[in-house]
Amino acid sequence: MIQLAPSILSADFANLEQEIKKVEEAGCDMLHIDVMDGHFVPNITLGPPIIKSLKNKTKLPFDVHLMIENPDQYIAQFVEAGADIITVHSETCIHLHRTIQLIKGCGIKAAVALNPSTPLVMIENVLEELDMVLLMTVNPGFGGQKLIPNMLEKIARLKRMIDERGLKIDIQVDGGVNLENIKQIAEAGANIIVAGSAIFNSTDIPETVKRLKENASSNL
Amino acid sequence: MIQLAPSILSADFANLEQEIKKVEEAGCDMLHIDVMDGHFVPNITLGPPIIKSLKNKTKLPFDVHLMIENPDQYIAQFVEAGADIITVHSETCIHLHRTIQLIKGCGIKAAVALNPSTPLVMIENVLEELDMVLLMTVNPGFGGQKLIPNMLEKIARLKRMIDERGLKIDIQVDGGVNLENIKQIAEAGANIIVAGSAIFNSTDIPETVKRLKENASSNL
Amino acid sequence: MIQLAPSILSADFANLEQEIKKVEEAGCDMLHIDVMDGHFVPNITLGPPIIKSLKNKTKLPFDVHLMIENPDQYIAQFVEAGADIITVHSETCIHLHRTIQLIKGCGIKAAVALNPSTPLVMIENVLEELDMVLLMTVNPGFGGQKLIPNMLEKIARLKRMIDERGLKIDIQVDGGVNLENIKQIAEAGANIIVAGSAIFNSTDIPETVKRLKENASSNL
Amino acid sequence: MIQLAPSILSADFANLEQEIKKVEEAGCDMLHIDVMDGHFVPNITLGPPIIKSLKNKTKLPFDVHLMIENPDQYIAQFVEAGADIITVHSETCIHLHRTIQLIKGCGIKAAVALNPSTPLVMIENVLEELDMVLLMTVNPGFGGQKLIPNMLEKIARLKRMIDERGLKIDIQVDGGVNLENIKQIAEAGANIIVAGSAIFNSTDIPETVKRLKENASSNL
Amino acid sequence: MIQLAPSILSADFANLEQEIKKVEEAGCDMLHIDVMDGHFVPNITLGPPIIKSLKNKTKLPFDVHLMIENPDQYIAQFVEAGADIITVHSETCIHLHRTIQLIKGCGIKAAVALNPSTPLVMIENVLEELDMVLLMTVNPGFGGQKLIPNMLEKIARLKRMIDERGLKIDIQVDGGVNLENIKQIAEAGANIIVAGSAIFNSTDIPETVKRLKENASSNL
Amino acid sequence: MIQLAPSILSADFANLEQEIKKVEEAGCDMLHIDVMDGHFVPNITLGPPIIKSLKNKTKLPFDVHLMIENPDQYIAQFVEAGADIITVHSETCIHLHRTIQLIKGCGIKAAVALNPSTPLVMIENVLEELDMVLLMTVNPGFGGQKLIPNMLEKIARLKRMIDERGLKIDIQVDGGVNLENIKQIAEAGANIIVAGSAIFNSTDIPETVKRLKENASSNL
Repeated sequence: MIQLAPSILSADFANLEQEIKKVEEAGCDMLHIDVMDGHFVPNITLGPPIIKSLKNKTKLPFDVHLMIENPDQYIAQFVEAGADIITVHSETCIHLHRTIQLIKGCGIKAAVALNPSTPLVMIENVLEELDMVLLMTVNPGFGGQKLIPNMLEKIARLKRMIDERGLKIDIQVDGGVNLENIKQIAEAGANIIVAGSAIFNSTDIPETVKRLKENASSNL
Repeated sequence: MIQLAPSILSADFANLEQEIKKVEEAGCDMLHIDVMDGHFVPNITLGPPIIKSLKNKTKLPFDVHLMIENPDQYIAQFVEAGADIITVHSETCIHLHRTIQLIKGCGIKAAVALNPSTPLVMIENVLEELDMVLLMTVNPGFGGQKLIPNMLEKIARLKRMIDERGLKIDIQVDGGVNLENIKQIAEAGANIIVAGSAIFNSTDIPETVKRLKENASSNL
Repeated sequence: MIQLAPSILSADFANLEQEIKKVEEAGCDMLHIDVMDGHFVPNITLGPPIIKSLKNKTKLPFDVHLMIENPDQYIAQFVEAGADIITVHSETCIHLHRTIQLIKGCGIKAAVALNPSTPLVMIENVLEELDMVLLMTVNPGFGGQKLIPNMLEKIARLKRMIDERGLKIDIQVDGGVNLENIKQIAEAGANIIVAGSAIFNSTDIPETVKRLKENASSNL
Repeated sequence: MIQLAPSILSADFANLEQEIKKVEEAGCDMLHIDVMDGHFVPNITLGPPIIKSLKNKTKLPFDVHLMIENPDQYIAQFVEAGADIITVHSETCIHLHRTIQLIKGCGIKAAVALNPSTPLVMIENVLEELDMVLLMTVNPGFGGQKLIPNMLEKIARLKRMIDERGLKIDIQVDGGVNLENIKQIAEAGANIIVAGSAIFNSTDIPETVKRLKENASSNL
Repeated sequence: MIQLAPSILSADFANLEQEIKKVEEAGCDMLHIDVMDGHFVPNITLGPPIIKSLKNKTKLPFDVHLMIENPDQYIAQFVEAGADIITVHSETCIHLHRTIQLIKGCGIKAAVALNPSTPLVMIENVLEELDMVLLMTVNPGFGGQKLIPNMLEKIARLKRMIDERGLKIDIQVDGGVNLENIKQIAEAGANIIVAGSAIFNSTDIPETVKRLKENASSNL
Repeated sequence: MIQLAPSILSADFANLEQEIKKVEEAGCDMLHIDVMDGHFVPNITLGPPIIKSLKNKTKLPFDVHLMIENPDQYIAQFVEAGADIITVHSETCIHLHRTIQLIKGCGIKAAVALNPSTPLVMIENVLEELDMVLLMTVNPGFGGQKLIPNMLEKIARLKRMIDERGLKIDIQVDGGVNLENIKQIAEAGANIIVAGSAIFNSTDIPETVKRLKENASSNL
């Protein structure tokens, strides 16, 4: 079953409580929260104080995607602010195994994200420790970009890598997802799909969420 | 005349449009926006996408305080998002004169902030270029701290430094301001005063704003 | 057909116009320009202002090899200075796919370089986007070093990787090339060969260029 | 034949001369010296001046494990202080081939260490140059941690990688080694085993060293 | 009354317990512990694990001089290891006031050190918060250097700056102190004097300590 | 007597030998060589290999202005390449006294440069060690900028600071110098003046050099 994670990056930040209610009522499965520090990526978005403000406004799990350098020093703050899953980028974690343990030691789920250019082999020694792998299908930093076509094949390779080891690990995809390509993404092996502008810019969010889920699941 | 700049850091981030309306209607003079990148200070708050969301919701000028490293590379983004004043920290700007020109070249006001420990001499060669100097009266990073007492004397020294050169430069103070100490702060020489929890945590914001302004101006 | 790219690092910097004419007239195919910033490598060589000075002095394409950290912030300057190909190092590009798009978006060719120790797998997800791959056969930083022998096998592996995907991508080799080993390098799969001291220190540049090309092509 | 390298990190630093004598007399094969700089790992241990103090107190070879950033600039100091082997971390060496040559050029042995999460492919192009590979079986920084179970399989893969190329390279393992698991570690392919608390915290060091060696060798 | 702080950097690291006993019995007043990380200074010395080993071996207070970058993240470790005073360098502390509060919040004394070239004005806003100021009279990094002559005048200026504010703050001097110049140093205003090789390389430590104290106090 | 130092940044890099001859024959006193690393300033210019190429082409002293981070690690290379004076920036030298000693220990002259915004107090403790102070009158990075007017007053303050201590130290000024303002600059106290485009872009270099010197000296 495909899960949908609307990306807060495309919401109206002036009225987040309302925006989150909309996607919750429309049947989304978790809230994807894009944290950017202006160092790992060329944009600054939001951090712990904002996440904390939102926590008691929704029952959706908080899927916190840390696009920041040195995530270790902020994990406690994000857990305290309400994160249910924390995703760190392989490219910023020299001691990736330690970072994963740090997250799991806080009692929440741990995931690793890979930039489009980053090879899958970078996670070969930590796969068993993970709840989820996030494959970026655009270069992180901004919403509204187009999915990089050869990422579909990367999703499929990750799916095989996980299956060959007999593991149960969620595959999340983030970047350029829309009503047209979500089917291919799901077929390639992704089961948690982030969508930003496709959802929040839609004039009929419940209908869009329904169709995204239908399209994603049509062939599975 | 004293101006009040409520700090967004103490607002309810789930409903920013409403929060800003409250302080606008209460008679505040500008919105103080605390941008933190998790590198210059140990917290991550918000950046251009959020500021942009708020711009058309209020007529208050946006007073953007960049607590970030390498501010030069983000100035264009903050101007485009709606900044009317940009304040950079002396501690992160090796080419401070260039950074100030960069801000002013975008057609907005430029200010420099000094941490509590940073000596006033660090701005002796750029004072003439500035619209405002921001003296931090707490260590930047978090709301709700107490004003460091010997900062009052630093405000007074800055006031003298500006007056001795016959300049007209605003003195802004940020950190630990409340109904009790605002009078002393204004007497020391500050004319734009940032207040966070004192305003947003108040049960009667219009009354609090009125009293803050009265207290600040009582002896001037 | 093998192409020769003389490395400016071995030219007489006091008379670059003349030096470039010599290699142009001798039949070289492009000018290899070694940009070093003293951070990525332990040497500082030259940058945009020098490249710009040379542009209208020759018809040779400018093959600009950026041995610098954070290349993204300088790509526009190098393009404007006259670069026809820009090569960035995989080791400095966390967002390698974005960097490649940035270069190609300027209307020029994009290449990625790998240090001797860097595994080929680092480019597995961007190979389709590239015009050229540069394999360093010495550690970058200085001219006049000896080719590391087991790099020949790395060239051959890269050649197979490209062929297996049915791609047409140039393989450039840089470091320690001479009249003796150029044949092996070409046989391993390289088709654009950088040579520095072998060319510029030669007493008869046209003859040396001719022999380098002959030796390179003898078995192909 | 298995070699034992007691880690100085678990010794009594107030009396190092004595501590080293104990492990030398107990039949250990080399002294494993853990250098941490507080940047590559979250701990600061010791550096050249301490190593130098110990050099003339023992005949044990000094196996110096550099858990530091930018090791190149300190190699000469460590060699002069008495290092017989220097191990650098793949994660901090962008020019890993150059760093290895630098170490070997000083007339001592060179090794590369890999963090638990770092893939073996990172050394595929330098394996031929190495005297030893160190696989971390805990995240570096502190003594007294437990061995990460799936590291046994990583040791075995490294062993195969070395054997397939017909090379003779020592495999060192560091982290969480004890009397119970040393047999498995040796069976997986390690032949130099670091042990810290298992040795120095033992009440009968000679007996413990003897049993560690016996256990390690029982099945080989 | 002048206090003497022997610098551990000149002790025999193979037998620290003994070395410390010697200086304790000779009447020294505290142990000066030189922590270097190889980043702030070009040397790596020792850190928390070694300090911890020494704590229960002596009653001398531990005067821990952090020649490291980002000291904030290590203060808790050094306090736990046994520090009684922690000195941080002004040059590495952008938020110097916060760092001082962090140290004092652990219940120990806080000091700031200035490199020879660093102006006194850098501490003008934190002087009231300090227990001690350390003036480096050599460039930090190595023992056995000569005192920079014009540092005497800097000591005198600091003494005046403290006296003019009516404060009681210790002035510590570190670098190149010997039997000949200690009198001038004390006369200039220093009251805690670090000596390394002058003490530990002496053949009669008690006599040397006695004479250093006598010479220092002769004119006061 | 005023000395003129033409800045190589404005020369034709394709024909440096000729360009240098021109300014040598025109009576210039030294060659000002602008080294930029793309980190301290947003431009990359040239480094040791180019300087070396020029050394035997002229008798002019080489006045090497290092606009680079971590200059210590490159000083030996620049001395070997032919530098007669090395200027480092105060903003990049935490151990400024050590850096100056390092330069002077190579047998050449040492200078410190200050950015427009950097206060003079930053050199109060090293003034006695210097052969020259360079005041930047534009923000470093590019040629062709306009002199910042209030820098004239900074030159005068530096002149007084030097005179009050009875020192003989050259004052160099760099940035935006032309035939019109050179008189004021000299009157303020500068005695070595860098000029780039004013000289190299002139159609009659000997005449321009003559007039620059005349204008500079007219009132002294």
